[in-house]
Amino acid sequence: MEALDAGLPRGGSVVSAARDVAHFPNECYNDEKQTDWSENGGRTVRKGEATKEHIIEKAAHVLNRRGYYASSLSEIMEASGLKKGGIYNHFESKEQIIAEAFAYNVKAMSERFDEAAAGFSHPIDRVLAMAAVARELYRGEPIPGGCAIMNAAVESDDAYPFLKAQARTSMERFVSKVRAILEQGQRDGRVDPAADAAEAALFIVSAIEGSLMISKLTDSGAAVDAALKRIASFLNRELRRP
Amino acid sequence: MEALDAGLPRGGSVVSAARDVAHFPNECYNDEKQTDWSENGGRTVRKGEATKEHIIEKAAHVLNRRGYYASSLSEIMEASGLKKGGIYNHFESKEQIIAEAFAYNVKAMSERFDEAAAGFSHPIDRVLAMAAVARELYRGEPIPGGCAIMNAAVESDDAYPFLKAQARTSMERFVSKVRAILEQGQRDGRVDPAADAAEAALFIVSAIEGSLMISKLTDSGAAVDAALKRIASFLNRELRRP
Repeated sequence: MEALDAGLPRGGSVVSAARDVAHFPNECYNDEKQTDWSENGGRTVRKGEATKEHIIEKAAHVLNRRGYYASSLSEIMEASGLKKGGIYNHFESKEQIIAEAFAYNVKAMSERFDEAAAGFSHPIDRVLAMAAVARELYRGEPIPGGCAIMNAAVESDDAYPFLKAQARTSMERFVSKVRAILEQGQRDGRVDPAADAAEAALFIVSAIEGSLMISKLTDSGAAVDAALKRIASFLNRELRRP
Repeated sequence: MEALDAGLPRGGSVVSAARDVAHFPNECYNDEKQTDWSENGGRTVRKGEATKEHIIEKAAHVLNRRGYYASSLSEIMEASGLKKGGIYNHFESKEQIIAEAFAYNVKAMSERFDEAAAGFSHPIDRVLAMAAVARELYRGEPIPGGCAIMNAAVESDDAYPFLKAQARTSMERFVSKVRAILEQGQRDGRVDPAADAAEAALFIVSAIEGSLMISKLTDSGAAVDAALKRIASFLNRELRRP
Protein backbone atom coordinates (compact mmCIF):
# COMPACT_ATOMS: atom_id res chain seq x y z
CA MET A 1 0.00 0.00 0.00
CA GLU A 2 2.88 2.39 0.54
CA ALA A 3 3.43 3.00 -3.13
CA LEU A 4 -0.24 3.66 -3.74
CA ASP A 5 -0.46 5.98 -0.75
CA ALA A 6 2.62 7.97 -1.73
CA GLY A 7 0.68 10.72 -3.47
CA LEU A 8 -1.93 11.08 -0.76
CA PRO A 9 -1.97 13.84 1.81
CA ARG A 10 -1.94 12.97 5.49
CA GLY A 11 -3.57 15.93 7.21
CA GLY A 12 -5.92 18.88 6.86
CA SER A 13 -9.32 19.09 5.22
CA VAL A 14 -10.30 17.35 2.06
CA VAL A 15 -9.89 20.59 0.12
CA SER A 16 -6.45 21.45 1.49
CA ALA A 17 -5.52 17.84 0.95
CA ALA A 18 -6.56 18.20 -2.67
CA ARG A 19 -4.49 21.37 -2.87
CA ASP A 20 -1.39 19.49 -1.68
CA VAL A 21 -1.96 16.70 -4.15
CA ALA A 22 -1.70 19.29 -6.91
CA HIS A 23 2.07 19.38 -6.43
CA PHE A 24 2.37 15.80 -7.58
CA PRO A 25 2.71 15.07 -11.25
CA ASN A 26 -0.27 14.10 -13.39
CA GLU A 27 0.60 10.42 -13.41
CA CYS A 28 -0.64 10.21 -9.83
CA TYR A 29 -4.19 10.68 -11.14
CA ASN A 30 -4.43 8.36 -14.07
CA ASP A 31 -5.92 5.40 -12.26
CA GLU A 32 -8.70 6.99 -10.23
CA LYS A 33 -10.88 3.92 -10.26
CA GLN A 34 -8.60 2.02 -7.91
CA THR A 35 -10.17 1.37 -4.52
CA ASP A 36 -7.41 2.21 -2.08
CA TRP A 37 -8.39 4.20 1.00
CA SER A 38 -6.17 6.12 3.31
CA GLU A 39 -6.39 7.89 6.63
CA ASN A 40 -6.66 11.68 6.37
CA GLY A 41 -6.68 13.74 9.53
CA GLY A 42 -8.56 11.03 11.39
CA ARG A 43 -11.14 10.44 8.67
CA THR A 44 -11.06 8.03 5.82
CA VAL A 45 -10.90 9.61 2.41
CA ARG A 46 -10.95 7.83 -0.87
CA LYS A 47 -8.23 9.00 -3.19
CA GLY A 48 -10.79 9.62 -5.91
CA GLU A 49 -12.77 11.93 -3.65
CA ALA A 50 -9.73 14.07 -2.90
CA THR A 51 -9.04 14.30 -6.62
CA LYS A 52 -12.62 15.29 -7.29
CA GLU A 53 -12.41 18.02 -4.63
CA HIS A 54 -9.18 19.20 -6.23
CA ILE A 55 -10.82 19.43 -9.66
CA ILE A 56 -13.84 21.29 -8.27
CA GLU A 57 -11.69 23.83 -6.47
CA LYS A 58 -9.48 24.53 -9.50
CA ALA A 59 -12.44 24.57 -11.90
CA ALA A 60 -14.37 26.88 -9.54
CA HIS A 61 -11.67 29.53 -9.75
CA VAL A 62 -11.19 29.26 -13.50
CA LEU A 63 -14.93 29.35 -14.20
CA ASN A 64 -15.58 32.34 -11.94
CA ARG A 65 -12.75 34.32 -13.52
CA ARG A 66 -13.13 33.35 -17.16
CA GLY A 67 -16.81 32.49 -17.39
CA TYR A 68 -18.93 29.48 -16.50
CA TYR A 69 -19.61 28.82 -20.16
CA ALA A 70 -16.79 30.64 -21.88
CA SER A 71 -14.17 28.49 -20.14
CA SER A 72 -12.93 25.51 -22.06
CA LEU A 73 -12.20 22.06 -20.74
CA SER A 74 -8.54 22.64 -21.59
CA GLU A 75 -8.48 25.57 -19.15
CA ILE A 76 -9.84 23.30 -16.43
CA MET A 77 -7.31 20.63 -17.42
CA GLU A 78 -4.48 23.15 -17.18
CA ALA A 79 -5.61 24.52 -13.81
CA SER A 80 -6.14 21.08 -12.30
CA GLY A 81 -3.11 19.44 -13.86
CA LEU A 82 -5.31 16.59 -15.05
CA LYS A 83 -6.01 15.09 -18.43
CA LYS A 84 -9.50 14.90 -19.92
CA GLY A 85 -9.95 11.27 -18.87
CA GLY A 86 -8.77 12.09 -15.35
CA ILE A 87 -11.46 14.76 -15.10
CA TYR A 88 -14.29 12.74 -16.64
CA ASN A 89 -13.60 9.86 -14.28
CA HIS A 90 -15.24 12.10 -11.68
CA PHE A 91 -17.91 14.00 -13.61
CA GLU A 92 -20.57 12.89 -16.04
CA SER A 93 -20.61 16.11 -18.04
CA LYS A 94 -19.31 19.65 -18.30
CA GLU A 95 -22.66 20.70 -16.79
CA GLN A 96 -21.89 18.69 -13.65
CA ILE A 97 -18.47 20.34 -13.32
CA ILE A 98 -20.09 23.77 -13.73
CA ALA A 99 -22.83 23.00 -11.20
CA GLU A 100 -20.41 21.71 -8.55
CA ALA A 101 -17.88 24.50 -9.17
CA PHE A 102 -20.61 27.11 -8.83
CA ALA A 103 -21.82 25.53 -5.57
CA TYR A 104 -18.21 25.57 -4.30
CA ASN A 105 -17.90 29.30 -5.03
CA VAL A 106 -21.23 30.17 -3.42
CA LYS A 107 -20.26 28.17 -0.31
CA ALA A 108 -16.94 30.04 -0.07
CA MET A 109 -18.72 33.40 -0.33
CA SER A 110 -21.46 32.38 2.07
CA GLU A 111 -18.95 31.27 4.70
CA ARG A 112 -17.15 34.59 4.37
CA PHE A 113 -20.41 36.54 4.79
CA ASP A 114 -21.28 34.53 7.91
CA GLU A 115 -17.80 35.03 9.32
CA ALA A 116 -17.97 38.80 8.73
CA ALA A 117 -21.40 39.05 10.38
CA ALA A 118 -20.29 36.94 13.34
CA GLY A 119 -17.87 39.66 14.43
CA PHE A 120 -20.75 41.92 15.50
CA SER A 121 -23.83 41.68 17.68
CA HIS A 122 -26.00 44.61 16.53
CA PRO A 123 -28.00 43.54 13.44
CA ILE A 124 -27.16 46.77 11.58
CA ASP A 125 -23.45 46.16 12.17
CA ARG A 126 -23.84 42.55 11.08
CA VAL A 127 -25.40 43.61 7.77
CA LEU A 128 -22.78 46.33 7.27
CA ALA A 129 -20.02 43.79 7.83
CA MET A 130 -21.58 41.50 5.24
CA ALA A 131 -21.85 44.38 2.77
CA ALA A 132 -18.19 45.24 3.30
CA VAL A 133 -17.23 41.79 2.00
CA ALA A 134 -17.78 43.43 -1.41
CA ARG A 135 -14.35 45.06 -0.93
CA GLU A 136 -12.78 41.62 -0.51
CA LEU A 137 -14.60 40.22 -3.54
CA TYR A 138 -13.30 43.17 -5.54
CA ARG A 139 -9.77 42.18 -4.49
CA GLY A 140 -10.42 38.56 -5.49
CA GLU A 141 -11.10 37.09 -2.03
CA PRO A 142 -12.27 34.54 -0.99
CA ILE A 143 -12.64 33.60 -4.68
CA PRO A 144 -11.22 35.27 -7.77
CA GLY A 145 -13.50 36.77 -10.43
CA GLY A 146 -16.10 38.64 -8.36
CA CYS A 147 -19.51 37.47 -7.17
CA ALA A 148 -20.20 33.96 -8.43
CA ILE A 149 -23.97 34.47 -8.28
CA MET A 150 -23.84 37.57 -10.49
CA ASN A 151 -21.42 35.90 -12.90
CA ALA A 152 -23.61 32.83 -13.25
CA ALA A 153 -26.78 34.95 -13.42
CA VAL A 154 -25.55 37.12 -16.28
CA GLU A 155 -23.94 34.30 -18.20
CA SER A 156 -26.78 31.84 -17.80
CA ASP A 157 -29.50 34.41 -18.37
CA ASP A 158 -31.88 33.32 -21.15
CA ALA A 159 -29.41 30.65 -22.23
CA TYR A 160 -28.62 28.05 -19.56
CA PRO A 161 -31.64 27.12 -17.42
CA PHE A 162 -29.89 24.83 -14.93
CA LEU A 163 -27.27 27.43 -13.95
CA LYS A 164 -29.85 30.21 -13.83
CA ALA A 165 -31.96 28.10 -11.45
CA GLN A 166 -28.94 27.49 -9.22
CA ALA A 167 -27.99 31.18 -9.27
CA ARG A 168 -31.55 32.21 -8.52
CA THR A 169 -31.74 29.96 -5.46
CA SER A 170 -28.38 31.27 -4.22
CA MET A 171 -29.45 34.89 -4.74
CA GLU A 172 -32.73 34.35 -2.91
CA ARG A 173 -30.83 32.77 -0.01
CA PHE A 174 -28.39 35.70 0.12
CA VAL A 175 -31.22 38.28 0.17
CA SER A 176 -33.13 36.18 2.73
CA LYS A 177 -30.10 36.04 4.99
CA VAL A 178 -29.88 39.85 5.08
CA ARG A 179 -33.65 40.11 5.54
CA ALA A 180 -33.63 37.59 8.41
CA ILE A 181 -30.97 39.57 10.29
CA LEU A 182 -33.03 42.76 9.94
CA GLU A 183 -36.25 41.01 10.96
CA GLN A 184 -34.58 39.47 14.01
CA GLY A 185 -33.39 43.00 14.83
CA GLN A 186 -36.97 44.25 14.55
CA ARG A 187 -38.12 41.60 17.02
CA ASP A 188 -35.25 42.59 19.35
CA GLY A 189 -36.08 46.30 19.10
CA ARG A 190 -32.78 47.22 17.43
CA VAL A 191 -34.19 47.85 13.96
CA ASP A 192 -37.09 50.20 13.12
CA PRO A 193 -40.17 47.94 13.31
CA ALA A 194 -41.87 50.00 10.58
CA ALA A 195 -39.11 49.30 8.03
CA ASP A 196 -39.74 46.97 5.11
CA ALA A 197 -36.98 44.42 5.77
CA ALA A 198 -37.53 42.58 2.48
CA GLU A 199 -37.23 45.79 0.47
CA ALA A 200 -34.19 46.94 2.46
CA ALA A 201 -32.44 43.60 1.86
CA LEU A 202 -33.12 43.76 -1.88
CA PHE A 203 -31.72 47.28 -2.06
CA ILE A 204 -28.59 46.39 -0.07
CA VAL A 205 -27.77 43.33 -2.16
CA SER A 206 -28.51 45.26 -5.39
CA ALA A 207 -26.11 48.06 -4.45
CA ILE A 208 -23.41 45.56 -3.47
CA GLU A 209 -23.74 43.57 -6.69
CA GLY A 210 -23.90 46.55 -9.04
CA SER A 211 -21.00 48.36 -7.40
CA LEU A 212 -18.84 45.25 -7.40
CA MET A 213 -19.46 44.85 -11.14
CA ILE A 214 -18.58 48.50 -11.83
CA SER A 215 -15.48 48.41 -9.60
CA LYS A 216 -14.19 45.31 -11.35
CA LEU A 217 -14.95 46.76 -14.79
CA THR A 218 -13.27 50.10 -14.07
CA ASP A 219 -10.43 48.68 -11.96
CA SER A 220 -11.31 51.08 -9.15
CA GLY A 221 -12.79 50.48 -5.73
CA ALA A 222 -14.66 53.82 -5.93
CA ALA A 223 -18.03 52.29 -6.88
CA VAL A 224 -17.94 49.78 -4.02
CA ASP A 225 -16.94 52.57 -1.61
CA ALA A 226 -19.76 54.81 -2.87
CA ALA A 227 -22.33 52.03 -2.49
CA LEU A 228 -21.12 51.04 0.99
CA LYS A 229 -21.33 54.67 2.10
CA ARG A 230 -24.96 54.96 0.98
CA ILE A 231 -25.88 51.57 2.45
CA ALA A 232 -24.36 52.66 5.77
CA SER A 233 -26.16 56.00 5.64
CA PHE A 234 -29.49 54.28 4.94
CA LEU A 235 -29.07 51.64 7.66
CA ASN A 236 -27.68 53.97 10.33
CA ARG A 237 -30.02 56.89 9.75
CA GLU A 238 -33.25 55.15 8.89
CA LEU A 239 -33.21 51.63 10.33
CA ARG A 240 -30.91 51.56 13.36
CA ARG A 241 -32.34 51.64 16.87
CA PRO A 242 -29.96 51.61 19.87
CA MET B 1 -31.59 47.40 -62.77
CA GLU B 2 -35.15 46.55 -61.85
CA ALA B 3 -34.38 42.93 -61.09
CA LEU B 4 -31.45 43.88 -58.87
CA ASP B 5 -33.50 46.50 -57.05
CA ALA B 6 -36.42 44.15 -56.43
CA GLY B 7 -35.34 43.17 -52.91
CA LEU B 8 -34.45 46.68 -51.82
CA PRO B 9 -36.57 48.80 -49.54
CA ARG B 10 -37.72 52.21 -50.75
CA GLY B 11 -38.36 54.22 -47.59
CA GLY B 12 -37.51 54.66 -43.92
CA SER B 13 -34.20 54.59 -42.09
CA VAL B 14 -31.36 52.26 -42.84
CA VAL B 15 -32.30 50.08 -39.89
CA SER B 16 -36.01 49.86 -40.71
CA ALA B 17 -34.99 49.27 -44.30
CA ALA B 18 -32.82 46.39 -43.14
CA ARG B 19 -35.75 45.09 -41.11
CA ASP B 20 -37.93 45.04 -44.23
CA VAL B 21 -35.26 43.27 -46.24
CA ALA B 22 -35.43 40.44 -43.68
CA HIS B 23 -38.72 39.29 -45.20
CA PHE B 24 -36.98 38.40 -48.43
CA PRO B 25 -35.46 34.97 -48.84
CA ASN B 26 -31.77 34.36 -48.24
CA GLU B 27 -30.91 34.31 -51.91
CA CYS B 28 -31.32 38.07 -51.97
CA TYR B 29 -28.14 38.36 -49.91
CA ASN B 30 -25.74 36.03 -51.61
CA ASP B 31 -24.13 38.57 -53.90
CA GLU B 32 -23.38 41.43 -51.53
CA LYS B 33 -20.30 42.51 -53.35
CA GLN B 34 -22.30 43.82 -56.28
CA THR B 35 -22.16 47.60 -56.61
CA ASP B 36 -25.76 48.56 -57.25
CA TRP B 37 -27.07 51.57 -55.38
CA SER B 38 -30.62 52.61 -54.82
CA GLU B 39 -32.52 55.61 -53.53
CA ASN B 40 -33.78 55.16 -49.97
CA GLY B 41 -35.89 57.90 -48.43
CA GLY B 42 -34.00 60.59 -50.28
CA ARG B 43 -30.55 59.28 -49.42
CA THR B 44 -28.45 56.82 -51.33
CA VAL B 45 -27.85 53.54 -49.54
CA ARG B 46 -25.77 50.71 -50.77
CA LYS B 47 -27.54 47.40 -50.55
CA GLY B 48 -24.60 45.92 -48.64
CA GLU B 49 -24.83 48.62 -45.98
CA ALA B 50 -28.50 47.92 -45.34
CA THR B 51 -27.67 44.23 -45.04
CA LYS B 52 -24.85 44.98 -42.61
CA GLU B 53 -27.18 47.11 -40.47
CA HIS B 54 -29.69 44.27 -40.53
CA ILE B 55 -27.07 41.77 -39.32
CA ILE B 56 -25.87 44.10 -36.56
CA GLU B 57 -29.40 44.69 -35.27
CA LYS B 58 -30.28 40.99 -35.23
CA ALA B 59 -26.92 39.98 -33.77
CA ALA B 60 -27.18 42.71 -31.12
CA HIS B 61 -30.40 41.23 -29.75
CA VAL B 62 -29.18 37.63 -29.85
CA LEU B 63 -25.85 38.48 -28.20
CA ASN B 64 -27.42 40.55 -25.43
CA ARG B 65 -29.91 37.80 -24.60
CA ARG B 66 -27.77 34.73 -24.99
CA GLY B 67 -24.30 36.06 -24.28
CA TYR B 68 -21.69 37.96 -26.26
CA TYR B 69 -19.41 34.93 -26.26
CA ALA B 70 -21.78 32.10 -25.55
CA SER B 71 -23.78 32.81 -28.72
CA SER B 72 -22.84 30.80 -31.74
CA LEU B 73 -22.58 32.00 -35.30
CA SER B 74 -25.48 29.70 -36.15
CA GLU B 75 -27.70 31.66 -33.74
CA ILE B 76 -26.74 34.89 -35.54
CA MET B 77 -27.36 33.18 -38.89
CA GLU B 78 -30.80 32.06 -37.73
CA ALA B 79 -31.76 35.48 -36.37
CA SER B 80 -30.53 37.35 -39.44
CA GLY B 81 -31.75 34.82 -41.99
CA LEU B 82 -28.30 34.86 -43.59
CA LYS B 83 -25.78 32.16 -44.37
CA LYS B 84 -22.24 32.22 -43.00
CA GLY B 85 -20.84 33.67 -46.24
CA GLY B 86 -23.53 36.34 -46.31
CA ILE B 87 -22.49 37.42 -42.82
CA TYR B 88 -18.75 37.31 -43.38
CA ASN B 89 -19.08 39.43 -46.52
CA HIS B 90 -19.67 42.29 -44.07
CA PHE B 91 -17.47 41.43 -41.09
CA GLU B 92 -13.87 40.37 -40.81
CA SER B 93 -14.32 38.29 -37.66
CA LYS B 94 -16.72 37.25 -34.92
CA GLU B 95 -14.97 39.89 -32.77
CA GLN B 96 -16.05 42.61 -35.22
CA ILE B 97 -19.67 41.42 -35.10
CA ILE B 98 -19.54 41.41 -31.28
CA ALA B 99 -17.98 44.89 -31.13
CA GLU B 100 -20.52 46.44 -33.51
CA ALA B 101 -23.47 44.64 -31.93
CA PHE B 102 -22.39 45.83 -28.49
CA ALA B 103 -22.08 49.41 -29.76
CA TYR B 104 -25.57 49.13 -31.28
CA ASN B 105 -27.04 48.04 -27.94
CA VAL B 106 -25.26 50.76 -25.97
CA LYS B 107 -26.50 53.38 -28.44
CA ALA B 108 -30.09 52.12 -28.10
CA MET B 109 -29.85 52.32 -24.29
CA SER B 110 -28.13 55.69 -24.35
CA GLU B 111 -30.81 57.19 -26.62
CA ARG B 112 -33.50 55.90 -24.25
CA PHE B 113 -31.74 57.43 -21.22
CA ASP B 114 -31.46 60.77 -23.02
CA GLU B 115 -35.09 60.63 -24.07
CA ALA B 116 -36.22 59.86 -20.50
CA ALA B 117 -34.13 62.72 -19.06
CA ALA B 118 -35.37 65.16 -21.72
CA GLY B 119 -38.90 64.98 -20.29
CA PHE B 120 -37.84 66.91 -17.18
CA SER B 121 -36.07 70.16 -16.38
CA HIS B 122 -35.00 69.73 -12.74
CA PRO B 123 -31.70 67.80 -12.63
CA ILE B 124 -32.95 65.51 -9.85
CA ASP B 125 -36.01 64.61 -11.92
CA ARG B 126 -33.80 64.05 -14.96
CA VAL B 127 -31.64 61.57 -13.06
CA LEU B 128 -34.70 59.85 -11.57
CA ALA B 129 -36.19 59.47 -15.06
CA MET B 130 -32.94 57.89 -16.28
CA ALA B 131 -32.90 55.51 -13.30
CA ALA B 132 -36.49 54.48 -14.03
CA VAL B 133 -35.38 53.19 -17.45
CA ALA B 134 -34.22 50.16 -15.41
CA ARG B 135 -37.90 49.10 -15.33
CA GLU B 136 -37.99 49.13 -19.14
CA LEU B 137 -34.72 47.20 -19.39
CA TYR B 138 -36.18 44.60 -17.03
CA ARG B 139 -39.12 44.25 -19.43
CA GLY B 140 -36.74 43.88 -22.40
CA GLU B 141 -36.95 47.42 -23.80
CA PRO B 142 -35.38 49.06 -25.75
CA ILE B 143 -33.24 45.92 -26.11
CA PRO B 144 -33.86 42.37 -24.86
CA GLY B 145 -31.51 40.74 -22.34
CA GLY B 146 -30.94 43.53 -19.81
CA CYS B 147 -28.12 46.08 -19.61
CA ALA B 148 -25.65 45.49 -22.44
CA ILE B 149 -22.80 47.08 -20.47
CA MET B 150 -23.27 44.76 -17.50
CA ASN B 151 -23.65 41.74 -19.74
CA ALA B 152 -20.47 42.54 -21.64
CA ALA B 153 -18.63 43.47 -18.43
CA VAL B 154 -19.39 40.21 -16.67
CA GLU B 155 -18.82 38.04 -19.71
CA SER B 156 -15.64 39.74 -20.87
CA ASP B 157 -14.21 40.13 -17.40
CA ASP B 158 -10.70 38.63 -17.15
CA ALA B 159 -11.22 36.87 -20.46
CA TYR B 160 -11.89 39.19 -23.42
CA PRO B 161 -9.89 42.42 -23.28
CA PHE B 162 -11.40 44.18 -26.30
CA LEU B 163 -14.99 43.80 -25.06
CA LYS B 164 -14.02 44.71 -21.51
CA ALA B 165 -12.38 47.91 -22.81
CA GLN B 166 -15.50 48.78 -24.80
CA ALA B 167 -17.76 48.05 -21.79
CA ARG B 168 -15.53 50.09 -19.50
CA THR B 169 -15.69 53.13 -21.78
CA SER B 170 -19.48 52.80 -22.02
CA MET B 171 -19.85 52.47 -18.26
CA GLU B 172 -17.64 55.50 -17.62
CA ARG B 173 -19.74 57.52 -20.09
CA PHE B 174 -22.95 56.43 -18.39
CA VAL B 175 -21.68 57.39 -14.92
CA SER B 176 -20.27 60.66 -16.31
CA LYS B 177 -23.62 61.53 -17.86
CA VAL B 178 -25.36 61.22 -14.46
CA ARG B 179 -22.54 63.11 -12.78
CA ALA B 180 -22.68 65.94 -15.35
CA ILE B 181 -26.41 66.43 -14.78
CA LEU B 182 -25.85 66.66 -11.02
CA GLU B 183 -22.90 69.04 -11.43
CA GLN B 184 -24.86 71.27 -13.77
CA GLY B 185 -27.59 71.27 -11.11
CA GLN B 186 -25.02 72.33 -8.53
CA ARG B 187 -24.00 75.26 -10.72
CA ASP B 188 -27.67 76.18 -11.18
CA GLY B 189 -28.39 75.98 -7.44
CA ARG B 190 -30.80 73.05 -7.76
CA VAL B 191 -28.53 70.39 -6.30
CA ASP B 192 -26.74 70.60 -2.92
CA PRO B 193 -23.37 72.18 -3.76
CA ALA B 194 -21.70 70.20 -0.95
CA ALA B 195 -22.69 66.84 -2.44
CA ASP B 196 -20.08 64.60 -4.05
CA ALA B 197 -21.60 64.31 -7.54
CA ALA B 198 -19.10 61.66 -8.70
CA GLU B 199 -19.84 59.45 -5.70
CA ALA B 200 -23.61 59.96 -6.05
CA ALA B 201 -23.48 59.00 -9.74
CA LEU B 202 -21.49 55.83 -8.96
CA PHE B 203 -24.00 54.83 -6.29
CA ILE B 204 -27.02 55.47 -8.53
CA VAL B 205 -25.64 53.47 -11.44
CA SER B 206 -24.52 50.67 -9.09
CA ALA B 207 -27.99 50.34 -7.58
CA ILE B 208 -29.61 50.37 -11.04
CA GLU B 209 -27.27 47.70 -12.42
CA GLY B 210 -27.38 45.40 -9.41
CA SER B 211 -31.16 45.59 -9.05
CA LEU B 212 -31.70 44.96 -12.75
CA MET B 213 -29.54 41.84 -12.53
CA ILE B 214 -31.45 40.57 -9.48
CA SER B 215 -34.86 41.37 -11.00
CA LYS B 216 -33.98 39.50 -14.17
CA LEU B 217 -32.57 36.55 -12.22
CA THR B 218 -35.58 36.27 -9.90
CA ASP B 219 -38.21 37.18 -12.54
CA SER B 220 -39.57 39.88 -10.26
CA GLY B 221 -39.46 43.65 -10.53
CA ALA B 222 -39.17 43.94 -6.72
CA ALA B 223 -35.40 44.54 -6.69
CA VAL B 224 -35.60 47.34 -9.30
CA ASP B 225 -38.50 48.90 -7.37
CA ALA B 226 -36.57 48.71 -4.08
CA ALA B 227 -33.48 50.31 -5.64
CA LEU B 228 -35.46 53.08 -7.35
CA LYS B 229 -37.18 53.89 -4.05
CA ARG B 230 -33.85 54.29 -2.24
CA ILE B 231 -32.32 56.26 -5.11
CA ALA B 232 -35.32 58.61 -5.03
CA SER B 233 -35.12 58.94 -1.26
CA PHE B 234 -31.41 59.77 -1.42
CA LEU B 235 -31.76 62.30 -4.26
CA ASN B 236 -34.90 63.99 -2.95
CA ARG B 237 -33.92 64.17 0.72
CA GLU B 238 -30.21 64.82 0.48
CA LEU B 239 -29.41 66.40 -2.88
CA ARG B 240 -32.48 68.24 -4.14
CA ARG B 241 -32.73 72.01 -3.84
CA PRO B 242 -35.88 73.81 -5.09
